[in-house]
Amino acid sequence: ISERWTNLQCVCVCVFSLELKFCGFFVSEREGLTVKMKMKMKVLLLLGCCCGLVCAGQNRSDPRDQRLFPVLSINYDYVQMPFEVSLWILLASLMKLGFHLLPVLSGVVPESCLLIVVGLLVGGLIRVMGKNPPVLDSQLFFLCLLPPIILDAGYFLPIRPFTENAGTILTFAVLGTLWNVFFMGAVLYGACRLEAGRLASVDLLSCLLFGSIVSAVDPVAVLAVFEEIHINELLHILVFGESLLNDAVTVVLYHLFEEFAHAGEVTVGDVFLGVVCFFVVALGGVMVGGVYGVLAAFTSRFTSHTRVIEPLFVFLYSYMAYLSAEVFHLSGIMALIACGVVMRPYVEANISHKSYTTIKYFLKMWSSVSETLIFIFLGVSTVAGPHAWNWTFVSITIVLCLLSRVLGVVGLTYIINKYRMVKLSGKDQFIVAYGGLRGAIAFSLAFLLSSDDFPMKDMFLTAIITVIFFTVFVQGMTIRPLVELLAVKKKKKTKCSINEEIHTQFLEHLLAGIEGVCGHYGHHHWRHKLDRFNKRYIRRCLIGGERSQEPQLVSFYNKMELKQALMLLESNSSANLSTGDTAAAP
Amino acid sequence: ISERWTNLQCVCVCVFSLELKFCGFFVSEREGLTVKMKMKMKVLLLLGCCCGLVCAGQNRSDPRDQRLFPVLSINYDYVQMPFEVSLWILLASLMKLGFHLLPVLSGVVPESCLLIVVGLLVGGLIRVMGKNPPVLDSQLFFLCLLPPIILDAGYFLPIRPFTENAGTILTFAVLGTLWNVFFMGAVLYGACRLEAGRLASVDLLSCLLFGSIVSAVDPVAVLAVFEEIHINELLHILVFGESLLNDAVTVVLYHLFEEFAHAGEVTVGDVFLGVVCFFVVALGGVMVGGVYGVLAAFTSRFTSHTRVIEPLFVFLYSYMAYLSAEVFHLSGIMALIACGVVMRPYVEANISHKSYTTIKYFLKMWSSVSETLIFIFLGVSTVAGPHAWNWTFVSITIVLCLLSRVLGVVGLTYIINKYRMVKLSGKDQFIVAYGGLRGAIAFSLAFLLSSDDFPMKDMFLTAIITVIFFTVFVQGMTIRPLVELLAVKKKKKTKCSINEEIHTQFLEHLLAGIEGVCGHYGHHHWRHKLDRFNKRYIRRCLIGGERSQEPQLVSFYNKMELKQALMLLESNSSANLSTGDTAAAP
Repeated sequence: ISERWTNLQCVCVCVFSLELKFCGFFVSEREGLTVKMKMKMKVLLLLGCCCGLVCAGQNRSDPRDQRLFPVLSINYDYVQMPFEVSLWILLASLMKLGFHLLPVLSGVVPESCLLIVVGLLVGGLIRVMGKNPPVLDSQLFFLCLLPPIILDAGYFLPIRPFTENAGTILTFAVLGTLWNVFFMGAVLYGACRLEAGRLASVDLLSCLLFGSIVSAVDPVAVLAVFEEIHINELLHILVFGESLLNDAVTVVLYHLFEEFAHAGEVTVGDVFLGVVCFFVVALGGVMVGGVYGVLAAFTSRFTSHTRVIEPLFVFLYSYMAYLSAEVFHLSGIMALIACGVVMRPYVEANISHKSYTTIKYFLKMWSSVSETLIFIFLGVSTVAGPHAWNWTFVSITIVLCLLSRVLGVVGLTYIINKYRMVKLSGKDQFIVAYGGLRGAIAFSLAFLLSSDDFPMKDMFLTAIITVIFFTVFVQGMTIRPLVELLAVKKKKKTKCSINEEIHTQFLEHLLAGIEGVCGHYGHHHWRHKLDRFNKRYIRRCLIGGERSQEPQLVSFYNKMELKQALMLLESNSSANLSTGDTAAAP
Repeated sequence: ISERWTNLQCVCVCVFSLELKFCGFFVSEREGLTVKMKMKMKVLLLLGCCCGLVCAGQNRSDPRDQRLFPVLSINYDYVQMPFEVSLWILLASLMKLGFHLLPVLSGVVPESCLLIVVGLLVGGLIRVMGKNPPVLDSQLFFLCLLPPIILDAGYFLPIRPFTENAGTILTFAVLGTLWNVFFMGAVLYGACRLEAGRLASVDLLSCLLFGSIVSAVDPVAVLAVFEEIHINELLHILVFGESLLNDAVTVVLYHLFEEFAHAGEVTVGDVFLGVVCFFVVALGGVMVGGVYGVLAAFTSRFTSHTRVIEPLFVFLYSYMAYLSAEVFHLSGIMALIACGVVMRPYVEANISHKSYTTIKYFLKMWSSVSETLIFIFLGVSTVAGPHAWNWTFVSITIVLCLLSRVLGVVGLTYIINKYRMVKLSGKDQFIVAYGGLRGAIAFSLAFLLSSDDFPMKDMFLTAIITVIFFTVFVQGMTIRPLVELLAVKKKKKTKCSINEEIHTQFLEHLLAGIEGVCGHYGHHHWRHKLDRFNKRYIRRCLIGGERSQEPQLVSFYNKMELKQALMLLESNSSANLSTGDTAAAP
């Protein structure tokens, strides 16, 4: 407890210093109300005193000594857990707030880098006070921090670009990751053989396991960096879709190699079962997610009398889909994505506009805080962890990561381009290869390894942290200048119009018709069939009231109308606000 | 773990039976798509199979036996906690949904009663399966379930009626509760003396402690019942305000009597300190809340660049205010109320409209689920708890509860009416006395007692549960017919207009002016001073941009405009929806 207590003090110090920084901002504003600032300082001092008082109370050993009055006493243990969790979240949100007040910094450095630096500082502070900083716990990460980010990504996944590029994304996610794992594993093993000393004891299985951990692109890191550079939709969905779908490959390979290492023997049958497992893990995850998605949509059909709890069903069912998939070691990420994708059209037709806003903004808030916490904890864990630094291993790993990614992307694109209508250019390939950031998922997976089966765990962990730092700092910071240098197409701000929607639908019908006439049952034909099945049966089943028979165009028109009206309405107050904002920000 | 497992099975069974019920509804609809229902059943069967599979996996003892495939294995322990929490919440929300689909039931019986019955059934189911049902844990209740409800109440507290009736509310909350405690404690002690047998061993201190637990009106129960009967604003704020503010009295008396019982001796000095403590607990709680409220308002000044995390600050700071107050045994409820009341005007001026919607609807959702869970757990705990039934004690308690409440309200109203402009009529007094419901706070406080100091703890707990059930079922179910029978004024649906606002403001200025001319520094004078101070200094300090100088009338006009426009916009889609709703509901 005393250790936790010191951590708490450090976090408190950070939070207070942030508050002081805000006060500084406040003074530097044109108004310069120094009297108010003094008042503010007094409030802070008072809080500091309270904190000191709690400290004093805590340091006494006898619980009966902690009494101030007959009734008043200090019972910190009682609230410790929620209080410290709140304090960490507060620290994360204040950090996020602070960075956006520094336009100089946030323009150049991605937020993720800054947050890792903050984590390093907080960790260092805790270390200086002679205690062990907390480590990003894998269970906390996989059960609390990751799901909101993935749900946000899955629920708001742009379906059309995703399905249109599904083949390319799947190729990169499955074949690309497999190539990375085996290429890295094999070369790393070879390099370790050549090297004398400690590295000679690393066996092939460990190398392959290490490769499977380190070669998967991380959705959290990709989201954090790509949201800031505003790249065009195609590249975004290629890199981001790959980072989502390679989860199944990583899960299968990770568990497979771990079990082989535990059992100490590999048979051909096991390898074959591994291939079967991949399909079970991927399709099983999607199925679990789909079932929960349908359940959520079906439940939302009946919520017209209890609008208040509508958002809860979205959160609950998707979280349960994730947990159910995790129970069976299926791909939780794919379950979450499938659940979000399946439920969204029906849920949105059933729920009220206010519930929609609540779901949207609460998910955005939640995922953004989770992301912030993940990066801060990555920094803190770096200070905490037991490290085993090995120059050779780390440098080989980084070089191999870059090399195998470039080779993989270039090689696969060569094949893919033969089947694509819109070819991937050299620039596109470069961005896809360069955008392969690694992140906290790799760290958490490595952290979960048992030291008994893998004596080199510490070295692996150090190498993985180095790779994460390298990709997030070097690649993350240089990708924006490179995008501008190469003049890669940026995201266009498209205002979708009714006209566009009519033409898109018309063309789709036309293409499906042409395919039908030709007798060629392709992409458009099946899409049309699915659309009709959806309209005839599923929509009537999952959407309540008259909305279920509403033609797509009418609902699109209604949505557009509401959106435009809201924009018009808010333009007045936001015009006021935005002039206020520029005045408030220094 | 095996016990938890059985609980899980029960909850699962409940959830699935609910889903089946929904399917039933679905069939009974005019469409009658039985084919679709069969499909639905298949999905359910599939889920049931999954569940059975998990069961099978769990029942094997050797962890290595749980493997299906090399990679696939069942690791339920890993996700147990979040999964079961989600399942309970899902059960609660499905129940809430189900009741609103049964208009026959929900029109007569308040939701709280139905939820308690559901809790009793679930508890009974768990009991039948030979296991101990879970009990409403006090820490869970005070740290997780209560804060959202109180925050929702505090943040959206109608300030004007509250301050206008502050004197009456405080009198009821402080003097009324004190009267209840000492009257009940004394008469109960006398009754126990007269009775031979077990009851003779109950001492005065225990009786007073019991009185302090059982006599406080419960905000959760009051909210649940009063939200449904749509009583006029005055009566609502009187009963609800009392239930919020009597927390300080309850906290002080509870801890005081507990410590006396532990120490075994009472000195006059301790009693004097108790009075001091009351002020420290109440004012300390308000101060802690106020400080966090100011901090939250100040922080929200800088969020114009990070709109996404705006709602988080409201939740975080208020939760931390609650926890900070609880650390020192101050009144957490009053801290939360103060925090919400202080932060709201400034936060609302700073944040975006979407963040406002998110805060509002998320708080409503969260508090409604917490409420549902509290009532279900009350039912489950009743089945679980160790009971010691004593006819005499229970019946005396119920009679005393009713008697002391009636005497207290009538007596205090006699005094209050001498100072009130709008007198409280006999009907009003009846509703205030009859609306004094008891709830889960009393249960949790009794649950926290140590059996060493209070050998009669089980009997107390049983009596308290009986009182809660009596008030929630008998009073809660009869209050609606009584309100209609007595023709008590209902809540008017007021549409506030600009005209009204202008006149209110004008009258306030006028009254403050008249008071100034008369030299009588009353209510209106101080209100005016406070308003001016707020406008001149505090608003400029806590509100960013130009909003801080915006006249009250202009911001009111803007708000009205936005509200009206939104209503107009949604009237189209909601007209569609409402016709759909009536069609969907049988």
